[in-house]
Amino acid sequence: LRKEKSFFLATHINPDGDALGSTLALSFALESLGKETVLYNRDSVPVYYHFLPGRERFTSSLLPGHSSLILLDCNEPERAGLEDFAIPFSVVIDHHETVKNFGDIRWIEPHAAATGILIYHLIRGLGVTITKDMATNLFTAIAVDTGTFRYSNTTPEVFRICGELVEYGADPASISFSLYETWSEGRFRLLISVLDTLEIIGDVALTYVSREMFAATGTAPEDAEHFSNFPRMMGNIKVSAFFREIDDGWKVSLRSRGDMNVAKIAESFMGGGHRNAAGYKTKLDLRTAKDALLQAIRSL
Amino acid sequence: LRKEKSFFLATHINPDGDALGSTLALSFALESLGKETVLYNRDSVPVYYHFLPGRERFTSSLLPGHSSLILLDCNEPERAGLEDFAIPFSVVIDHHETVKNFGDIRWIEPHAAATGILIYHLIRGLGVTITKDMATNLFTAIAVDTGTFRYSNTTPEVFRICGELVEYGADPASISFSLYETWSEGRFRLLISVLDTLEIIGDVALTYVSREMFAATGTAPEDAEHFSNFPRMMGNIKVSAFFREIDDGWKVSLRSRGDMNVAKIAESFMGGGHRNAAGYKTKLDLRTAKDALLQAIRSL
Repeated sequence: LRKEKSFFLATHINPDGDALGSTLALSFALESLGKETVLYNRDSVPVYYHFLPGRERFTSSLLPGHSSLILLDCNEPERAGLEDFAIPFSVVIDHHETVKNFGDIRWIEPHAAATGILIYHLIRGLGVTITKDMATNLFTAIAVDTGTFRYSNTTPEVFRICGELVEYGADPASISFSLYETWSEGRFRLLISVLDTLEIIGDVALTYVSREMFAATGTAPEDAEHFSNFPRMMGNIKVSAFFREIDDGWKVSLRSRGDMNVAKIAESFMGGGHRNAAGYKTKLDLRTAKDALLQAIRSL
Repeated sequence: LRKEKSFFLATHINPDGDALGSTLALSFALESLGKETVLYNRDSVPVYYHFLPGRERFTSSLLPGHSSLILLDCNEPERAGLEDFAIPFSVVIDHHETVKNFGDIRWIEPHAAATGILIYHLIRGLGVTITKDMATNLFTAIAVDTGTFRYSNTTPEVFRICGELVEYGADPASISFSLYETWSEGRFRLLISVLDTLEIIGDVALTYVSREMFAATGTAPEDAEHFSNFPRMMGNIKVSAFFREIDDGWKVSLRSRGDMNVAKIAESFMGGGHRNAAGYKTKLDLRTAKDALLQAIRSL
């Protein structure tokens, strides 16, 4: 980082708070050392992350001529939409498990709660003073990936670093407001109509959203993201399944807790994911798709 | 604390996580110094706080013969239902503003995020090693009073102390699960039916719960607590008003953000509260009560 003059920073498609916040914080830090950075994301910055300082730095146009790529919060160029882009030298900074061995320099810590934690240490290691803009981006990165300090990855280090970031100017109330309390009325009405579809069979909660419901509330599929989490507020629910209508059937998101492995269920429908968060697509009609899912859960 | 042998610990009625967690943590600490404690609360411990280690220590029966009262998370005996109880010597530990000057020893820090912060410092000051049970109670106390690190009282100290408490054995994921993901199905169905009553007039969101809705879901008024917060997820809502049917009318909870002072509105209906959280009772029918409220907000 000290040697080179200009960097091409890229992060994964459908970027979340950790992807965006980590990339922006590193960009600010490198800039304070007199470096130039280009920030790339294939997708545009989601509207609920528009509060992140510097978010206008992201571009979705690929220009050749970059010497050093820094890939953040993912570890293969395909995840960033960069499969066909020639880069002579690559650095990977990530906290996800890797499959491929991409990168000339690889710094991967699967036990870190967020890539933001690594960038915090990197900025400190570079001797850069953390500004309010860097602190806001890093706090957001860590807050999003720990479920604002509710997931099991919320270690003492997470608290220690976030306390420091607040000292450097991150504002937990304002960040939380931006993250959780800026829903549109349409999105809130969409949530209500989705909750109205709730069906509980044993310890499985089923909800769905149809294209008519999007139309009636003036919303888009991205507005329904994370809706599968709501039924998990009930203590007796082990699996929450959320069906979203797509062109040729339904996209099913599964969320579970503890030992209930929904990745296995998703795989049986040609989908995939992690133990507690997985998904698949189906061409069945809704009732048949629900029944097929319930049967798969029962026979697990 | 070092001088006396036995203590009578009491906290406010309708106890929340800070009241219960602070009292329990102090009880464990005093016990480790060989002291005896009696823990009093007029109300029973709400079911969603049954995960707190030691919660069975609370009693709601008042026995005479105590020499030293420690009043926690409130600062007048009336708030604890102790107005007629004779105590020769009283200590008050609280983070709320005081009106009366009750207490022979008064330790009141209105700027502290939680009484749990004060108890943390007290336990450290006593030289007591923080156990997992103390850590869980203190973490819960601080988490609840900071909205799990989302309110503006979430200072660097809050993060520093909570990081330490995790090192001492507090488990953020398990505590958050107990606090937020153990709803009964009835409570969740009650929330859905309340959200179905949503009416939005300008930047005011109106919801209500009737006695029929409690009956249909097998729930009680305590299940509807905090429901007024949900409409605040919408970025354009300045006031959320939640009407709960009572024997002779409606109890109205008002939540607002920023400069919108709902205490003033509540006062105009003979109620009270704080700038962003207030309430009142009315004997009007629902439609008239809503219209009266909207008029009061408009003329603010």
